[in-house]
Amino acid sequence: MKKFLNSTDDFLKESLQGFGAAHKDIISCHYNPNIITRSKATKKGKVVIISGGGSGHEPMHGGFVGYGMLDAACPGFVFSSPSPDQMIAASEKVEGGAGILFIVKNYSGDIMNFQMASEMITGASETVLINDDVAVEDSSYTTGRRGVAATVIVEKIVGSLAETGGSLKECKILGDKVNRNSGSMGVAFSSCTVPAAGKPTFKLGPDEMEFGVGIHGEPGRRRDKVQPAQEITNELLGAIIEDLKLENNGEILLFVNGMGGTPLTELYLLYDNAKKTLDNKNIKIARSLVGNYCTSLEMQGASLTITKLDQELKKHWDSPVHTAAMRWGL
Amino acid sequence: MKKFLNSTDDFLKESLQGFGAAHKDIISCHYNPNIITRSKATKKGKVVIISGGGSGHEPMHGGFVGYGMLDAACPGFVFSSPSPDQMIAASEKVEGGAGILFIVKNYSGDIMNFQMASEMITGASETVLINDDVAVEDSSYTTGRRGVAATVIVEKIVGSLAETGGSLKECKILGDKVNRNSGSMGVAFSSCTVPAAGKPTFKLGPDEMEFGVGIHGEPGRRRDKVQPAQEITNELLGAIIEDLKLENNGEILLFVNGMGGTPLTELYLLYDNAKKTLDNKNIKIARSLVGNYCTSLEMQGASLTITKLDQELKKHWDSPVHTAAMRWGL
Repeated sequence: MKKFLNSTDDFLKESLQGFGAAHKDIISCHYNPNIITRSKATKKGKVVIISGGGSGHEPMHGGFVGYGMLDAACPGFVFSSPSPDQMIAASEKVEGGAGILFIVKNYSGDIMNFQMASEMITGASETVLINDDVAVEDSSYTTGRRGVAATVIVEKIVGSLAETGGSLKECKILGDKVNRNSGSMGVAFSSCTVPAAGKPTFKLGPDEMEFGVGIHGEPGRRRDKVQPAQEITNELLGAIIEDLKLENNGEILLFVNGMGGTPLTELYLLYDNAKKTLDNKNIKIARSLVGNYCTSLEMQGASLTITKLDQELKKHWDSPVHTAAMRWGL
Repeated sequence: MKKFLNSTDDFLKESLQGFGAAHKDIISCHYNPNIITRSKATKKGKVVIISGGGSGHEPMHGGFVGYGMLDAACPGFVFSSPSPDQMIAASEKVEGGAGILFIVKNYSGDIMNFQMASEMITGASETVLINDDVAVEDSSYTTGRRGVAATVIVEKIVGSLAETGGSLKECKILGDKVNRNSGSMGVAFSSCTVPAAGKPTFKLGPDEMEFGVGIHGEPGRRRDKVQPAQEITNELLGAIIEDLKLENNGEILLFVNGMGGTPLTELYLLYDNAKKTLDNKNIKIARSLVGNYCTSLEMQGASLTITKLDQELKKHWDSPVHTAAMRWGL
């Protein structure tokens, strides 16, 4: 295993320390338990948005803490659910008197721990469950569909509503809507290596890809020979379009997400190929996001996410955001 | 070779098409010859900043075209110099009547072609040559030191001066100053694979790193066993600090740059380790940048860059920028 680290025990702590120091104008990192909060206190009366999950998907979620997006994030160890004491500590630190919305990816451990926390905190809370991965039903750590890259879109859009005065109920409804409007699917060319494991999570032959891979390296629909990018794109989009029942002339957000080890040139090539496919179907790309936002450590691969848009979603997508990993309008 | 592509011949074109479509509010891509310009016309009387070089280092340089940074970029094929007709076409398209500053990394092919272009264009031009890599003198494609990640810092700071009315001479002087104030050094854990070559540029054993690697995989100071991150950091910083003759109590910008295949968690861990080293030496990190900005395709590795700061440099670093890869204040 080749990684920049000193010991697997200190890996997460040192990484969080660096993140906290590099972005101290935006966020603060706290330890025992590990949480990331905005560096400014919550405005009274604001619904707060808290997310979290295993580390290894950076910049998700810590990179999305800041104005217009999350109020706090709870990073578990690499690919391990955060514990309820993290969510409770985060809730106590950022609570603004108007309730807490938890954004949780659909993994059994995450759900159990966020649910435990929501029962233990005082005050109102709601949960938006993300399950956008159209690749497979049920998986290594999941009952139902996995929650993957659409989490980024949900956090941006709901974060905007909360920032502009949305109530807890309104934020919950909007979050569920964005999740329902979104579908994702990914492909891996290589495995990732969890630091504590020290060896690749799975093995792929020199000409193989995992089609429909999960963000922890979970199996997808099949193992196959690497295909040309246009064919991969067509199959990923076909599955998403069918799932979302996308119609001609609809407006969408197209999100090309890198898994961590794929160069930007290849992500933009995928964007080009996806645009050709969508143009042919008269589906209009009204908003775009391209980059490494929901990663799987150093995995080579990419996922495509489509979110059906309307005026409300476009407004909240375009609104100002100021986080370590996503910033515009400020 | 596993890459998202359809053919090595169309790789760059399709990638540029995707880049152009995804960021059409900021930039326009033009073909035959390939150039990237701002989508808005140059304001009359503005010095224009043009950079370029081989592709494969994305987001550099195309990702830095936009308000407050570059006016145009000339992408060559992967790891190949752009040709003079690209610089000439870019100059004609963005010229604003106040002269052109070329920002060129110190590689023999780049220098030759930019020089040829500067002799063929009408109107005034100056060139800032970047040679921040303290690892080695002379290299595979270089006489003298290589130009690497400090290019990003130069483009940001000089771009700001040009945007706010700096003359050609002032921009040239500032660019040279930032280059002189900057030192970089990197380490690779894996090679990259140039699409047209189809195989890794160099080979590393399962426990080896290339210490002082170049951004095209050029040899560094030595091949060595992978060391703990703190030791790697200390040696990289030691070489840079010695080169820059950094003194106690000086203010610096610390730039932790990923080579393309390294997760953000590891880059932030390097930031933490670097901060510890710099704190011990009473060197103050006044500004920070962490991420994949000057990459080498999918190479796993990272580089550290230090730029000595003063009030002028801080002002131009902090000023608004709106490009695909770097955006704040707008």
